[in-house]
Amino acid sequence: MPYPIDETHDPSLRSWVDSANDPDTDFPIQNLPLCAFRVDGGRPGRVGTRIGDQLLDLAMVEDLLGTPTLLHHGEDRLFESGLSGLLRQPRLAWSNVRRTLVRLLTDRAQAEKLRPALLPECDAQLLLTHPVGDYTDFYASVYHATNVGSMFRPDNALLPNYKWLPVGYHGRASSIVPSGTPITRPRGQQSPADDGGSPTFAPCKMLDYELEIGVIIARGNDLGRPIPMSEAEHHILGLCLLNDWSARDVQKWEYQPLGPFLAKNFATTVSPYIVTMEALAPFRAPAMERPPGDPQPLGHLDCPANRSAGGFDITLEVHLASSQMRDRGLGPVRLSKGNFRDMYWTVAQMIAHHTSNGCNLQPGDLLGSGTVSGPTRDSRGCLLELTWDGDPFAHPPLIKPGSARTPIALPTGETRTFLQDGDEVTIKGYCQRSGFRRIGFGQCRGVITPAHP
Amino acid sequence: MPYPIDETHDPSLRSWVDSANDPDTDFPIQNLPLCAFRVDGGRPGRVGTRIGDQLLDLAMVEDLLGTPTLLHHGEDRLFESGLSGLLRQPRLAWSNVRRTLVRLLTDRAQAEKLRPALLPECDAQLLLTHPVGDYTDFYASVYHATNVGSMFRPDNALLPNYKWLPVGYHGRASSIVPSGTPITRPRGQQSPADDGGSPTFAPCKMLDYELEIGVIIARGNDLGRPIPMSEAEHHILGLCLLNDWSARDVQKWEYQPLGPFLAKNFATTVSPYIVTMEALAPFRAPAMERPPGDPQPLGHLDCPANRSAGGFDITLEVHLASSQMRDRGLGPVRLSKGNFRDMYWTVAQMIAHHTSNGCNLQPGDLLGSGTVSGPTRDSRGCLLELTWDGDPFAHPPLIKPGSARTPIALPTGETRTFLQDGDEVTIKGYCQRSGFRRIGFGQCRGVITPAHP
Repeated sequence: MPYPIDETHDPSLRSWVDSANDPDTDFPIQNLPLCAFRVDGGRPGRVGTRIGDQLLDLAMVEDLLGTPTLLHHGEDRLFESGLSGLLRQPRLAWSNVRRTLVRLLTDRAQAEKLRPALLPECDAQLLLTHPVGDYTDFYASVYHATNVGSMFRPDNALLPNYKWLPVGYHGRASSIVPSGTPITRPRGQQSPADDGGSPTFAPCKMLDYELEIGVIIARGNDLGRPIPMSEAEHHILGLCLLNDWSARDVQKWEYQPLGPFLAKNFATTVSPYIVTMEALAPFRAPAMERPPGDPQPLGHLDCPANRSAGGFDITLEVHLASSQMRDRGLGPVRLSKGNFRDMYWTVAQMIAHHTSNGCNLQPGDLLGSGTVSGPTRDSRGCLLELTWDGDPFAHPPLIKPGSARTPIALPTGETRTFLQDGDEVTIKGYCQRSGFRRIGFGQCRGVITPAHP
Repeated sequence: MPYPIDETHDPSLRSWVDSANDPDTDFPIQNLPLCAFRVDGGRPGRVGTRIGDQLLDLAMVEDLLGTPTLLHHGEDRLFESGLSGLLRQPRLAWSNVRRTLVRLLTDRAQAEKLRPALLPECDAQLLLTHPVGDYTDFYASVYHATNVGSMFRPDNALLPNYKWLPVGYHGRASSIVPSGTPITRPRGQQSPADDGGSPTFAPCKMLDYELEIGVIIARGNDLGRPIPMSEAEHHILGLCLLNDWSARDVQKWEYQPLGPFLAKNFATTVSPYIVTMEALAPFRAPAMERPPGDPQPLGHLDCPANRSAGGFDITLEVHLASSQMRDRGLGPVRLSKGNFRDMYWTVAQMIAHHTSNGCNLQPGDLLGSGTVSGPTRDSRGCLLELTWDGDPFAHPPLIKPGSARTPIALPTGETRTFLQDGDEVTIKGYCQRSGFRRIGFGQCRGVITPAHP
């Protein structure tokens, strides 16, 4: 099921784009993630790949080389009108382009010809890679689900369906924004103080982030035709970082019986780069081992390749810098460090489940993994978990009511239970493995701005 | 807030399209709903309006008349590339076009010139009017919510938030299909027979329809900028009929804690015509009167015009014909008859609530009202309610477990608790009021086909 490790992953490859050879870069030639960008006054939505500290304009590469160098087949150009040309192609289109790009970017003889298609990343504005049709958010970390469930249902943290299917719900596509977009604190209804009182409508008091991985769908499926497990990964272009901003007080009041709505749909931030399945090939991992006593997945959610390599070894970090910290020149503090390997359900299982009733995915659709939390306290992927005093995974388990919280101390002496205005949240992600170049996802960043009056 | 009643609603208007003057037509000149259609071999996505038994091709009318007859302003043509041109326009664009069309279609001198833009509706294939970006489904009938709640939580049918906010959740846009599209019975996970057993993955055994009204958004709002109640209706182009097909056994197992997902996203059928807010002006009604003891809406969900005229007096019927009935030439049976006036929350309140946290609506977005049920048993909008033996609105209330059901008898001797393969479900809607021509919505229809093997 996973893409093969091939010559494009060779750690000894060196590019004539010098910055790509820097051992600390997130973007060596083995990565080549996709993005969309604009340069001041230029046309919007140019498709690029990142190499070192540069962007390579792929439509311009097509121009400079002439057809059919970068073409997968036929006379279509893949990159002339955003990412949609690529998203419509069969599975191996990007694999072929990637091989071509690696050849071109390692061949010094091509440098003079292609240099006009390069521009410094810092001169470009990175945009959403493409318009998202439908966005679905999952809940695939058993650690996250157990922590959150324990806060509100101590005796019954995980509902009976949790270990049988990857719980998911539909999110809002219109409010997906690129990294760096300011996030306005939402207003919303919050529970009455006492039974029988009136709810209030006010700025959110429990604003949170959620560390997630986003999955970008390439080819879709026809309505009524499920995608089997064995083919699920062929429908993925790649992964990105995602912040599912959450208004916890709004969520608590609104979410029953039909799930989260206004608590989530005011903004979802995605990182600018799609790290492709090809680039991720060396960093695959077995699906999380199910603890003894847990059921094995039903047949339509299971296949051998998923067990052996359905996971992804991606280290994920969340950093926070308050307005005061930035004003005083202090760097951000790391709030947590986790790994995408620790998900109970794999991306392939999300896709097989999502389409098992015939629901159709379309090119460009986005799936969110749900908050990525691990078994330890420092790997919790949101403040709802991080500042909670309980720990169902301690020995012995420590269950406390959801209101039992200890704020996080910042170097300025400030404290945080939830986000304050001016806080900047940055998610980072990277893959590293002995024998391979490290690749990174870049950043998914947002600053909280005050609620409108 | 509502659009004014004006000369376009005059019941004495007569069109030179004779069939529009038929007293029984759903489509007199006072209606003029919008649709998209294709004729065999022709170009897809032509925008039309329905008049009597004819479709009028609006881009062709623009051609025949020459600019700027149908234009709202500037040099833009509104209808040359689908409905998107109109959806981007300011509030009164359609009001102006409608007045022009009424003038043209009542003026016999225009008949010869415009006749080339007419074609019999039966010669056209009606399509989705436009691609839907985001689809949100509400739960705005207190009768529906109370019935369903009573089946599963007899002591606590309505959750505490119900009377404070219009509960809603995000639906799936990709699987919205036009009336007439066959609906494949979905497969899905269903609850274990006993505690601790395994769930099954099988064709749905409790397939249901839900009678709803769809709301088509025209102008959107910027992210972070709520739409106030007083402006909410200015963002609506019009209404249609909607069937939110539901797999009840899948829903029961999957829906906690994040809401319905695969139970709903396999298909949503919409009727082909958008009946515009202008056409609906004579059929506005007060918002449902809240029973004594119920809270009044908070300020951001309230305004005087909403109380006096936030509702719509639309009669809604559901009809069923089994495959056997159709084979034997028997007409469909009416399962229920209700009215959209009976919703606890108005469409304006849905829009104000949806955007109250800054969430952005976009042109073409679709809102579903939630199942339209009334206080009487024969006005229940889905089989989950219709075949249930309980009746919380009886005197005294009759509460029975959700499994206590009496099937509906069909004229063939067949019975139905939920839908069987081959069943054809048709939703109809119309408005009538003394002193005005009756207008109709047409039909929202689908036939159940067997699950794929």
